[in-house]
Amino acid sequence: MSTHGKAPTSGRNRADRVDIFDTTLRDGEQSPGISLNTQEKVEIAQQLARLGVDVIEAGFPITSPGDFEAVSEIARNVEGPVICGLARTHKADIDAAWGAIKYSPRPRIHTFISTSDIHITHQLQTTRDDVKGQARAAVAQARSLCDDVEFSPMDATRADIEFTAEVCAIAVDEGATVVNIPDTVGYTTPQEYAGYFERLYELVPVLREVRLSVHCHDDLGLAVANSYAGVLAGARQVECAVNGIGERAGNCSLEEIVMLLRTRGDVHGLDTGVESRELARTSRMVSRFTGYAVQPNKAIVGRNAFAHESGIHQDGVLKERTTYEIMDATEVGLDSNQIVLGKHSGRHALRDALNDLGFRVDGAALNQAFQRFKEIADKKKQVTALDLEAIVSDEFRERAQGYNLAWFDVEASSRRAPHARVAITLPSGEESEGEATGDGPVDAIFVAIQKAANTDCELRQYTVSAVTEGEDALGEVTVMLRAADRLASGQGVSTDILEASARAYVRALSNALEGAAMREAESITAEAASERTPGP
Amino acid sequence: MSTHGKAPTSGRNRADRVDIFDTTLRDGEQSPGISLNTQEKVEIAQQLARLGVDVIEAGFPITSPGDFEAVSEIARNVEGPVICGLARTHKADIDAAWGAIKYSPRPRIHTFISTSDIHITHQLQTTRDDVKGQARAAVAQARSLCDDVEFSPMDATRADIEFTAEVCAIAVDEGATVVNIPDTVGYTTPQEYAGYFERLYELVPVLREVRLSVHCHDDLGLAVANSYAGVLAGARQVECAVNGIGERAGNCSLEEIVMLLRTRGDVHGLDTGVESRELARTSRMVSRFTGYAVQPNKAIVGRNAFAHESGIHQDGVLKERTTYEIMDATEVGLDSNQIVLGKHSGRHALRDALNDLGFRVDGAALNQAFQRFKEIADKKKQVTALDLEAIVSDEFRERAQGYNLAWFDVEASSRRAPHARVAITLPSGEESEGEATGDGPVDAIFVAIQKAANTDCELRQYTVSAVTEGEDALGEVTVMLRAADRLASGQGVSTDILEASARAYVRALSNALEGAAMREAESITAEAASERTPGP
Repeated sequence: MSTHGKAPTSGRNRADRVDIFDTTLRDGEQSPGISLNTQEKVEIAQQLARLGVDVIEAGFPITSPGDFEAVSEIARNVEGPVICGLARTHKADIDAAWGAIKYSPRPRIHTFISTSDIHITHQLQTTRDDVKGQARAAVAQARSLCDDVEFSPMDATRADIEFTAEVCAIAVDEGATVVNIPDTVGYTTPQEYAGYFERLYELVPVLREVRLSVHCHDDLGLAVANSYAGVLAGARQVECAVNGIGERAGNCSLEEIVMLLRTRGDVHGLDTGVESRELARTSRMVSRFTGYAVQPNKAIVGRNAFAHESGIHQDGVLKERTTYEIMDATEVGLDSNQIVLGKHSGRHALRDALNDLGFRVDGAALNQAFQRFKEIADKKKQVTALDLEAIVSDEFRERAQGYNLAWFDVEASSRRAPHARVAITLPSGEESEGEATGDGPVDAIFVAIQKAANTDCELRQYTVSAVTEGEDALGEVTVMLRAADRLASGQGVSTDILEASARAYVRALSNALEGAAMREAESITAEAASERTPGP
Repeated sequence: MSTHGKAPTSGRNRADRVDIFDTTLRDGEQSPGISLNTQEKVEIAQQLARLGVDVIEAGFPITSPGDFEAVSEIARNVEGPVICGLARTHKADIDAAWGAIKYSPRPRIHTFISTSDIHITHQLQTTRDDVKGQARAAVAQARSLCDDVEFSPMDATRADIEFTAEVCAIAVDEGATVVNIPDTVGYTTPQEYAGYFERLYELVPVLREVRLSVHCHDDLGLAVANSYAGVLAGARQVECAVNGIGERAGNCSLEEIVMLLRTRGDVHGLDTGVESRELARTSRMVSRFTGYAVQPNKAIVGRNAFAHESGIHQDGVLKERTTYEIMDATEVGLDSNQIVLGKHSGRHALRDALNDLGFRVDGAALNQAFQRFKEIADKKKQVTALDLEAIVSDEFRERAQGYNLAWFDVEASSRRAPHARVAITLPSGEESEGEATGDGPVDAIFVAIQKAANTDCELRQYTVSAVTEGEDALGEVTVMLRAADRLASGQGVSTDILEASARAYVRALSNALEGAAMREAESITAEAASERTPGP
């Protein structure tokens, strides 16, 4: 009934193998307020490689120098998966995508254009004939650069299927190796989507010779089911994102489609190459770097996905696990929290533990991580794998350029207004102090930081969660703010919620200003600036 | 393509109408750490009635005096929907269910027993023949008390379908009015579940004369799709929960299935009676009372469900809304945040605003809410509908019995250990002080509270979120702790995060001790105590 977490053997028949195309770094990163830097994107891509995904859509290189740089770095440094860059059908987009991905041993260009009349008329403001011409030229250009080219007719599920089929036939004719059918607005249903694939195969039999792909959004809660319906109808690539992040309600959740395919192999005989034991860790990393929490009742990776509350269910699981469990928590890596260090653990023990967790940390970064580790080990009895992940992630959030927290003092009481004094180091290296009262101690700190930085910003979101259970747990604060007309987020980790808040705020401020500086550079590429980060 | 939020006319053909059976208060409440009191359950049930659900499964009366009381209160006070109580096939269960729901003008008893061999063998440790006998006796008994009786063959999707069909036929024969086919462990797929219904109809044609129902769990991310497949195959009742909460990965999400049925009426011609503009508020209320956050990319009610980040998408929506939106945010009530009060608003304005929000608050509760409102209006420029919801919810959290926060003083700094002094009032009415240092100011407060209350507890979860955007937003803290061998949660709302934390902690402590006291009472009903809150 389940292969219990084992990846398929390499001998698996290609026809039974579903490729996992991860778009966490492209469509996922299009969620409001996510501002990953290049280092974080490379780190996530390395984790995706450990997870065993087949394709990483690393970004959309034309849209900004930052995106271009991140895609290039991933292409240079991440081994295993195909590295894919997104491009509209414009010549400059495809050149930029190739320029960024060409460093990978397995590059792919993914180009797209809408085939729905609603998009053609209102957004592209062009004609069906022009769309056909653009698709032909783009795939031909991409193929002249790269052997592996994916084509997407955007908004296909709301488009005339005969016209979409014509455009797909053109793409295959020009050498596309993968054809993806996006449900861009999350509108289709499993029954309708399956029918769409069946009709496409009838209209364009040559589609059987390329890889068909699904890309589904979750606006009506059907992204996983629609992806699965597409696979049952013949698609052999699923575009998905970790924790299901992405535009609006997000994309098909990677962990859900992977575990669905694995757990119900009995009915369809298909599987992916994913190492499912890496799912929980990948989910935590993406949640932490993006500041997007996973709700407790999220399938596969939510805190309660394997928890049994009711007496009857607990009773049943104790008598026989399978009475209420169709998967084992160890299959998705929820048992990985076994590494424990203490205040007497040394630098080698820390590096070994980090290596076990998949973090390659050396030199200055190791020294920095070790110093934070010692500070925290002084306060906490045990430092677990989850704590180590949080500490390392926190260190990755340090910016060489930007603001840093120096120190703070706060007095708070239910009987008078709270008061804060804060010092930060400015990008110039000098220290600046601010002082304020506020509605609460966090507000007082935030206002004091604004005064110290001599800047105005608007707080948009503020969340705190505990990294592990227990009284001495590390607190992880995520701040999202608007500064310099840009949304940016920052995280901070500490056993002290006020310190974590101050760190997170200072980092969000740095991210916002770094983003603003980058955008200034971008305004040179005028076309890209007008349509920042699009996609199917 | 969409009926844009309008509920169907009362003239809608019954065959085209899908009943919404809400189990937030039964299966939803079985999520770890949720501890709703009777007042909160009644408030949620009243909101569900405003939302226009057809059936409210209010609880499982045999399992505890608290559950019995809550179901009775809902049956007495909530008008409109059918009020349903859950019962195993045991005689005492059915008597207890009837005892609690009989005050409703539209009572329903829901009884269940497993039909899968894995449950029959390992958990019930009985025989198929015995299961048939129990089902027959239970439905007959329930029908002797109540005209409306629902029967569920638990774990049906993993059971032998011929045997399940036999048991369903018995239930119909004894007068069951609704037959529900639970996917208890979230194992089935849309294709398989649809086939299950088709075969059931073949085996038991008389099922066409009763209402068939779906009850799906989300372990593989398919709860909504499976429910929809069941409806397309003939079911006309969907069991679901607000925000998709429930055992493990939870139940089918109410808001997703409702908006799927409404938005894609073009393909199936079905609809529900739900007033979709109440969805957002219902989601917020359930999230707040349960302490279960909704992730930003959750379909329909997540913060980003209607947000457009990419340039191409924003550009498209500005040119023509439908290029990237299949629903309008106003359809689900996301435009409701228009009520704004200020520090000069009076008691009448507050009561009117609360009435508009659906809260009936009078007398002492209004005075208390008004006092909190004035305190907050002194600190915040504007008090919005979202703030009012939070304040009223916070007031509902006050316990007459239990601990209350009197005052606190905290000093925190990055340069020395934080220190807290806290005073609480004990259940006896006397004030008690505690003093402590900690790893952070929140930890110091929590330890000081434990000292003041002279009790030990273990912190399990700690989260903070902002009620609205902006610097002066209210912070809402949720604490989950284990005390007296029981998980309990508490919420606190304030512009001061330390105050909100202290309030939340003190309330969680009160809830844990109240629960412990109640459980002592429960140990009288020995059988119920051994299997606390089960269900399909």
